[in-house]
Amino acid sequence: MKPKATTRICHSTADDVFVRGRSLTEELIGRVSFTEMIYLQILGRMPTPGQTAMLDACLVTLVEHGLTPTAITTRMTYTSAPESIQGAVAAGLASVGSLFVGTVEGCALLLARMVQSEDGEAEAVAIVREHRDRGARVPGFGHPIHRPDDPRTPRLLAVAREHGVAGAHVDALETLSAVVDRERGKHLTINATGAIAATLADCDVPAEILRGIALISRCAGLVGHVREEQLHPAMNALWEAAEAAVPFEHTPEEDS
Amino acid sequence: MKPKATTRICHSTADDVFVRGRSLTEELIGRVSFTEMIYLQILGRMPTPGQTAMLDACLVTLVEHGLTPTAITTRMTYTSAPESIQGAVAAGLASVGSLFVGTVEGCALLLARMVQSEDGEAEAVAIVREHRDRGARVPGFGHPIHRPDDPRTPRLLAVAREHGVAGAHVDALETLSAVVDRERGKHLTINATGAIAATLADCDVPAEILRGIALISRCAGLVGHVREEQLHPAMNALWEAAEAAVPFEHTPEEDS
Amino acid sequence: MKPKATTRICHSTADDVFVRGRSLTEELIGRVSFTEMIYLQILGRMPTPGQTAMLDACLVTLVEHGLTPTAITTRMTYTSAPESIQGAVAAGLASVGSLFVGTVEGCALLLARMVQSEDGEAEAVAIVREHRDRGARVPGFGHPIHRPDDPRTPRLLAVAREHGVAGAHVDALETLSAVVDRERGKHLTINATGAIAATLADCDVPAEILRGIALISRCAGLVGHVREEQLHPAMNALWEAAEAAVPFEHTPEEDS
Amino acid sequence: MKPKATTRICHSTADDVFVRGRSLTEELIGRVSFTEMIYLQILGRMPTPGQTAMLDACLVTLVEHGLTPTAITTRMTYTSAPESIQGAVAAGLASVGSLFVGTVEGCALLLARMVQSEDGEAEAVAIVREHRDRGARVPGFGHPIHRPDDPRTPRLLAVAREHGVAGAHVDALETLSAVVDRERGKHLTINATGAIAATLADCDVPAEILRGIALISRCAGLVGHVREEQLHPAMNALWEAAEAAVPFEHTPEEDS
Repeated sequence: MKPKATTRICHSTADDVFVRGRSLTEELIGRVSFTEMIYLQILGRMPTPGQTAMLDACLVTLVEHGLTPTAITTRMTYTSAPESIQGAVAAGLASVGSLFVGTVEGCALLLARMVQSEDGEAEAVAIVREHRDRGARVPGFGHPIHRPDDPRTPRLLAVAREHGVAGAHVDALETLSAVVDRERGKHLTINATGAIAATLADCDVPAEILRGIALISRCAGLVGHVREEQLHPAMNALWEAAEAAVPFEHTPEEDS
Repeated sequence: MKPKATTRICHSTADDVFVRGRSLTEELIGRVSFTEMIYLQILGRMPTPGQTAMLDACLVTLVEHGLTPTAITTRMTYTSAPESIQGAVAAGLASVGSLFVGTVEGCALLLARMVQSEDGEAEAVAIVREHRDRGARVPGFGHPIHRPDDPRTPRLLAVAREHGVAGAHVDALETLSAVVDRERGKHLTINATGAIAATLADCDVPAEILRGIALISRCAGLVGHVREEQLHPAMNALWEAAEAAVPFEHTPEEDS
Repeated sequence: MKPKATTRICHSTADDVFVRGRSLTEELIGRVSFTEMIYLQILGRMPTPGQTAMLDACLVTLVEHGLTPTAITTRMTYTSAPESIQGAVAAGLASVGSLFVGTVEGCALLLARMVQSEDGEAEAVAIVREHRDRGARVPGFGHPIHRPDDPRTPRLLAVAREHGVAGAHVDALETLSAVVDRERGKHLTINATGAIAATLADCDVPAEILRGIALISRCAGLVGHVREEQLHPAMNALWEAAEAAVPFEHTPEEDS
Repeated sequence: MKPKATTRICHSTADDVFVRGRSLTEELIGRVSFTEMIYLQILGRMPTPGQTAMLDACLVTLVEHGLTPTAITTRMTYTSAPESIQGAVAAGLASVGSLFVGTVEGCALLLARMVQSEDGEAEAVAIVREHRDRGARVPGFGHPIHRPDDPRTPRLLAVAREHGVAGAHVDALETLSAVVDRERGKHLTINATGAIAATLADCDVPAEILRGIALISRCAGLVGHVREEQLHPAMNALWEAAEAAVPFEHTPEEDS
């Protein structure tokens, strides 16, 4: 017999709301930071101070990176349908997927594989060769702008060390980085998603939900773009330039 | 006592599915067109042949208009997160709102007001002046590209007449157009959303759901853009051009 | 050098819009059905009459199947945020994914594998055993309600034969069905997504975009649910019942 | 001539990212909390410690309130399309609209009207009577569960006072509350969205972007529900109960 579905997150009374067993009014509002609340909501327990500092650092890192496709989408959608801020933010979040931020999940899964193996370095060699053989990038490595090194990475690793949360996954990331460079014969940066994968794994955040952490951070970034679009609309400029960059080409019918 | 909520759209048995009281397998699949099915699903009854022809014409009209914000959004979202075609199409649809296609709803509400008044022309004068006084456009009029006249409008009105569905709302649209021109002292085109508002109102499609008709049509258009993005990706070109068109400007903190 | 990105779908002049090389006003509005326009928009060429009939049948099939998660989502979202029909429809479409309708894509890829192999039946045996070995279902087979047989399947296959579009993929589906039954030792229905995969593949619709066809059809279904929610709101009943079905369970912190 | 569109939020170099003029690596990561970063991103300046405490309290408040329509949507969407966490969260956020959390915006606009008037109490009377005359609720007042008083409200107001941020908008809220009770002849609670509207207005957060703050908070809540759905799926129970609660009713064709 299938067990009955239940929820363990929240229950309410007329007098209070309880989240993960804690009174919202007495234990949470005014007592914990939003970052602590995020960890509690997702993982069901309060983070340590070091875990909070690390999660803060990771959330701060991903808020903003300029006019990316996700920000462009939110701004164009907001001005097209200003009745729905929620629709503009939701449309932007739909592009937080496998190509960009989703690599955080892929990298975390590789680091977990190294941590669970008997010989992490041998596993790293296997990982790098597998990716090379199928022409794929190792997730968490390389960046189109931040070359030769992504400046966010050493900062995130420093926070991890300063707060005593760096552990087996950060070690694995550094091993993997050395193997990537050796196998390629040249240096490839660990990017911010690689550093976030390792440091949050060492804070016990499961790989399967890491994309969710990125969504919370990007959501804040997109609200900032809605606000700028309210004050200084860029939609027409974004649209006109995008449209002009991809001209019409006549092709015979059998093309596609 | 609040009446119990029910649904009147669909019920299933092991042997069949019934939509609006009709057997999917015996009366619908292979017997009705998708356009007839759309009308049946939304309005609960089969359209007449003339209503079907008119709805076909309106659905065909809105499928595609180039690299609009909605198409740009879908293409950038698809390439960012190719695991989810549904997310790319949904993100694009989020911008089918009050600025663009949503004007179809606003125009239909004005035409209904004229049809329900004793003196349609006097009502049209009141409508035009109200909009002028608050600096607003009359929805359904004007177009940035299709000047002096939107070529889709006479075609849609011709379809309405050819199939005998043109009625009080098409008449009201033409009265409103004459008043718009007279009050402004120069000609402003009836655009495609104005023509769709009038012709579908004369097919008994309520103003409140007209935006839904536009969504179905645009959904087809966006699937076409996903397909082109699969074959001939434009995402990087769209992104780079949009980003370059809106440069960073340093401003003092108190700006926003 | 990277080739310049172009679009081959649409271009406009002041006087007309051209979609896939055809004049919207002279060749499309009032001349082609919405279903023909969908095929033209996605595939870049006009369908044959048989392909149109088949696409109509498939689009009609997927419009509606009662209060599924996608319909429940659209109705709850609409009543929560009635300012945005587009948001309600987009939210519903986000669940047209790998579990339900997405199986159409998985099935089409298997049928293509059979068609391209030298011995289709041997390939079918390999496919069934692979799925069995990893505990997965063969996409396109089985249905929780329509047992022993999905009534939509024979109807769709009959339409394919009646209009002369049934070809190698329909043959492959029937071979695969026989192998599924033989290997399992009992009968499992070909479901509607299996029949749609085969019949649309025989209409030259690529597997990669099949989920898009499902989105267009479901979009129409969801607009019908928005309309019913406007007239006969069910949101509170849906919410209360769903909430009550999943009670709070107190658990120790270390659970999740 | 239209001024050129610019962005003032972010620019990058190979060595760093600058958000609102601050170095991400030197001034933000590891130096500011996520809550401070949210304020900086949206408003373009760092919050005071009191503003940070208040924003933390408001963000903590809205994270979670059980199996609301937005949480139900996210859970059903995730299990239907597990390939896209982003789609599940985006679908849930689409319902953060005018009926529920959107009231925060409506309440803030009323409080601003009182603060800007010469006689705040007279304005409050006018506000209450206007809403009564058109049969509308005053946004920010009343709650279906938390009766007679929403326990989150005094807690939020206490945080505002403790940190010295309570100002003209909190005063206006209390005046409005007294007038609501007097005009109705019985007590109606100030709900959490009312308290958030007043306290964030006193932190200089504009009414137009308040819904965005709610989106960030709810985004975190929804990620928690995705995580629980991964561990303890509730989708089938939610679906079955919702579907069963709204039975099919046969009606004559002319109904809708």
